[in-house]
Amino acid sequence: MPIYKAPTRDTRFVINELLRLELYGDLPGFENASADMVDAVVEECGRFCSEVLAPINLSGDQEGCTRHADGTVTTPKGFKEAHAQFRKAGWGTLSAPEQFGGQGMPHVMGMMAEEFISSANQSWGMYPGLTGGAISAILAKGSPEQQAKYLPKMISNEWLGTMNLTEPHCGTDLGLIRTRAVPAADGSYAITGTKIFISAGDHDLTDNIIHLVLAKTPDAPDSTKGISLFIVPKVLVNDDGSLGERNAVSCGSIEHKMGIHANATCVMNYDGARGWMVGEENKGLAAMFIMMNAARLGVGIQGLSQAEAAYQNAVKYAQERRQGRALTGPAEPAEKADTLFVHPDVRRMLMDAKAYTEGMRALCLWGALQVDLSHKAVDEAERQMADDLISLLTPVIKGYGTDKGFDTCVNMQQVFGGHGFIEEWGMSQFVRDCRITQIYEGANGVQAMDLVGRKLPQNGGRAVQALFALVDGECAAAKLRPELEKLASQVEKANGELKAATMWFMQNGMANPNAIGAGAHHYMHIMGVVSLGLMWLRMATVSLDALAAGASDKAFYEAKLTTARYYGERFTPDAGALRRKIEAGSEALMALPVEAFATV
Amino acid sequence: MPIYKAPTRDTRFVINELLRLELYGDLPGFENASADMVDAVVEECGRFCSEVLAPINLSGDQEGCTRHADGTVTTPKGFKEAHAQFRKAGWGTLSAPEQFGGQGMPHVMGMMAEEFISSANQSWGMYPGLTGGAISAILAKGSPEQQAKYLPKMISNEWLGTMNLTEPHCGTDLGLIRTRAVPAADGSYAITGTKIFISAGDHDLTDNIIHLVLAKTPDAPDSTKGISLFIVPKVLVNDDGSLGERNAVSCGSIEHKMGIHANATCVMNYDGARGWMVGEENKGLAAMFIMMNAARLGVGIQGLSQAEAAYQNAVKYAQERRQGRALTGPAEPAEKADTLFVHPDVRRMLMDAKAYTEGMRALCLWGALQVDLSHKAVDEAERQMADDLISLLTPVIKGYGTDKGFDTCVNMQQVFGGHGFIEEWGMSQFVRDCRITQIYEGANGVQAMDLVGRKLPQNGGRAVQALFALVDGECAAAKLRPELEKLASQVEKANGELKAATMWFMQNGMANPNAIGAGAHHYMHIMGVVSLGLMWLRMATVSLDALAAGASDKAFYEAKLTTARYYGERFTPDAGALRRKIEAGSEALMALPVEAFATV
Repeated sequence: MPIYKAPTRDTRFVINELLRLELYGDLPGFENASADMVDAVVEECGRFCSEVLAPINLSGDQEGCTRHADGTVTTPKGFKEAHAQFRKAGWGTLSAPEQFGGQGMPHVMGMMAEEFISSANQSWGMYPGLTGGAISAILAKGSPEQQAKYLPKMISNEWLGTMNLTEPHCGTDLGLIRTRAVPAADGSYAITGTKIFISAGDHDLTDNIIHLVLAKTPDAPDSTKGISLFIVPKVLVNDDGSLGERNAVSCGSIEHKMGIHANATCVMNYDGARGWMVGEENKGLAAMFIMMNAARLGVGIQGLSQAEAAYQNAVKYAQERRQGRALTGPAEPAEKADTLFVHPDVRRMLMDAKAYTEGMRALCLWGALQVDLSHKAVDEAERQMADDLISLLTPVIKGYGTDKGFDTCVNMQQVFGGHGFIEEWGMSQFVRDCRITQIYEGANGVQAMDLVGRKLPQNGGRAVQALFALVDGECAAAKLRPELEKLASQVEKANGELKAATMWFMQNGMANPNAIGAGAHHYMHIMGVVSLGLMWLRMATVSLDALAAGASDKAFYEAKLTTARYYGERFTPDAGALRRKIEAGSEALMALPVEAFATV
Repeated sequence: MPIYKAPTRDTRFVINELLRLELYGDLPGFENASADMVDAVVEECGRFCSEVLAPINLSGDQEGCTRHADGTVTTPKGFKEAHAQFRKAGWGTLSAPEQFGGQGMPHVMGMMAEEFISSANQSWGMYPGLTGGAISAILAKGSPEQQAKYLPKMISNEWLGTMNLTEPHCGTDLGLIRTRAVPAADGSYAITGTKIFISAGDHDLTDNIIHLVLAKTPDAPDSTKGISLFIVPKVLVNDDGSLGERNAVSCGSIEHKMGIHANATCVMNYDGARGWMVGEENKGLAAMFIMMNAARLGVGIQGLSQAEAAYQNAVKYAQERRQGRALTGPAEPAEKADTLFVHPDVRRMLMDAKAYTEGMRALCLWGALQVDLSHKAVDEAERQMADDLISLLTPVIKGYGTDKGFDTCVNMQQVFGGHGFIEEWGMSQFVRDCRITQIYEGANGVQAMDLVGRKLPQNGGRAVQALFALVDGECAAAKLRPELEKLASQVEKANGELKAATMWFMQNGMANPNAIGAGAHHYMHIMGVVSLGLMWLRMATVSLDALAAGASDKAFYEAKLTTARYYGERFTPDAGALRRKIEAGSEALMALPVEAFATV
């Protein structure tokens, strides 16, 4: 059975030494995030995920979910019990607002927990995970009554939530949705329609499920400007908070999917179900984006999560499996063969994984800190800067993060040779589960377009200019230290490619928007290379300082320096190739008539 | 249900117009390969695959194989009937020697059939496919008696064959095998041991299965120098060719795999089974490599096959699915949304797929022609050149071809958005089935090491020097034509990166073999970029000539020119980045102690 141990040492390094959370002790919610407190929470959360959630991951994949004739859904063995333990321990409440029963800790801590949960069991983690998005929307747009009625029980995980956007004929293009919401005399609406791909749409973990549903009121414009958001509880909630009648919403079927078998992906049938509007009529898309943005960061870290779990297993296998001899001569002559670890090509895959996972962990937790700072920083300029950066980088964390996460899972499976293809080893599951992260919450092509079409031009390019300056400034400073000079130059060069690509978009995009669309994906990847590069530069700096200060855990910091070097050598060269592809433009790409794609 | 139509127009283009098979009419086997004959065979074979094999691909994946208590295996519905039709039509005999009942056509034609068969149904295709490897070994090393006894029935597909190499503790490192072969008085051997991952190890398609098994005789050296190869029939064959007793070999279990569910991957138990040595004692590895080399080309084309099938479905979906609007304004204002085809990022994925599949098809069929020429060319120098090139490029076709094939399948799945993750659409199957091609017949890391460790230095680097000269020569010639100048320069530049990387290996590999191992994978990919580049340069040249000659099928040749341009712009830039990664060497890659890979 595959293993998983939460990478708590590395997480603590990022939170306490890289982000230095305690520096923000004067901000609300940060007051308790002392290094000691962080250490304790990280270790305890890691233990829970490794001991409770990881052991039911492979069995959950094999068993899957079962829909019964009455539309109810049973989750795999152990899932319900794990949820009860999770609720009791309060792991879902870490960074939820205290006003509604949360612990009010920084988002950084919530993000930390999301990584561990998802590494241990992505399918399981999606049940509380989707609830997070629903909570965000009600927090931002719900009425005080709605907040009081739903939030405490959702935050405590007594009830879970879902997001209902997609319909059979539309996913990305939500202007096309057909689900109808007809107003009733009592202020509620009758919701009718079919939603598909609803993760955690039904299950047996909780007594109630709060669905957030996009629908159109009778006279709404026939576009994204005519979408409203509704709360539709599975079981109606009485005024005293007790559960009332069953609402007219049910799971019509469960999809047969490539992965995340243990999460019920439901077709949801709304048959005049009672719902209550959240926020203003026809302004549902804005509320939806609030759910989405939270969810996109969460999906980005799922890419990391699967890669981390796959990596741990590949490391273990490479240590145990003996095959062939080192190119430099037998490493262990007394054995019949050396371990896989001696082979440079196996090392290459493991080092790629190490450089990606540690860099991505830093980026995700740093991103979560920007979410905190965008709301809580004392200084307006600091709030704006944090908001600019996380808005810009959310599609990068989601798109680049999951693309590289998937590639990493595939490589880690490759380390196992033929055994990687056998389901019992668990490597196939990491690949299959990770695959969805590139697709859901906006496919990565949509992320790329969000980046170049919306985030880049916003406020006259303020955010991307801030990123350029940030990276250049830190590279210039780092270049003054001989040990960092090479890495800083490599990151600076990648940043130069990003700037050149941006300039190229500016020069060519006005006349031909397809020129931007044709380069969007590659642009997102260059920004990913630069962002991880910035994180590696910072991690190298901190590690150098720690070694200079005589840190006891010397091997840890030395490994960081070696991995930083590896990142500079092996990841940054891609930026130049990607820039050249962008500069090829859209001419050849858009030239062919559709008929030319038939090879018959 | 997913579609598949054999890409016969493109295949005929490659065989008749690019390779110009009829030029070789004076060589044995080529006399009947006139353009008309080729057209007829290609079309008929394509029809068979599309109509008989493709319709049982998805159902085969869902049903899988069943092992019964007595160790016998039942294949999915329709597989046995399809095999009967296949045998009757003689599709397995195309390029088998006439002496044993084959049609004696060029390998090019066999390779053409392999692509179509595998695109239509990879799992099904592996049953006759593995037989091809077994036939090669008996042809090369079997005694006349063995050849007479087994080959006619294997070539006619009355019996099928397998290759038994891997054991639980060893795959790549065959020196470790434990299966024993004890000589009996009658010249046969008693084979005892366990083999795993035996594709098509048991099934109900034929009355007999001829296993080729690696084992060690009692006093054999305990290394790869002590391996012998044995024929072990499932049912013993009497001297008159009739079937006798059941041999002591059986399927112990079927693996649960990520893909190729419809091919029975068996644990095979040999319990004193009677076997007959093929070739000399302790020389089994050489015979094994004969099977392997044929199989590796076949696996390379499987990477193409799955990509082609996935591509066709993505093209269809992109034409039918309406979502969003073109960036340049509504393409079809009367519709509620435009098709996916208008979106540059969807185009990018489709054009990437088109450039890869068409380039890879040319490379594989060209490779098959080199196999033919290496045996049959009149001129010794021509035979040697063909042999050098195909030896060098076999690991590239297998390793680079399947890496890119898998990436292509993943991208084609991505075109489907959420629907790509749902099994019924079939895109998941293409990804899952294609995944094994990177692993079996030597994982791609093994291919990379075969390339840099064995193929590069052979004969003082003669083969790679021949490739350099070939590419440079054709680029220089093409640069004289203005329409080809840019592409030729791009391919030439990529070839320059390959030369630089080769030089770097020469300068650094002697002192540190790990420096070569650390760059092997990237080197294989640069050579893939250059090889496909050469094919695109040739295809562009032929297309330009055809247009100049007033070809009626103008759109076809114009599409080739556009796709060639796209290849130059979007594929060749990778060569530079890969070269830079190679030049990073092995220092950071090999530096860390194993303990540093634990993130806990």
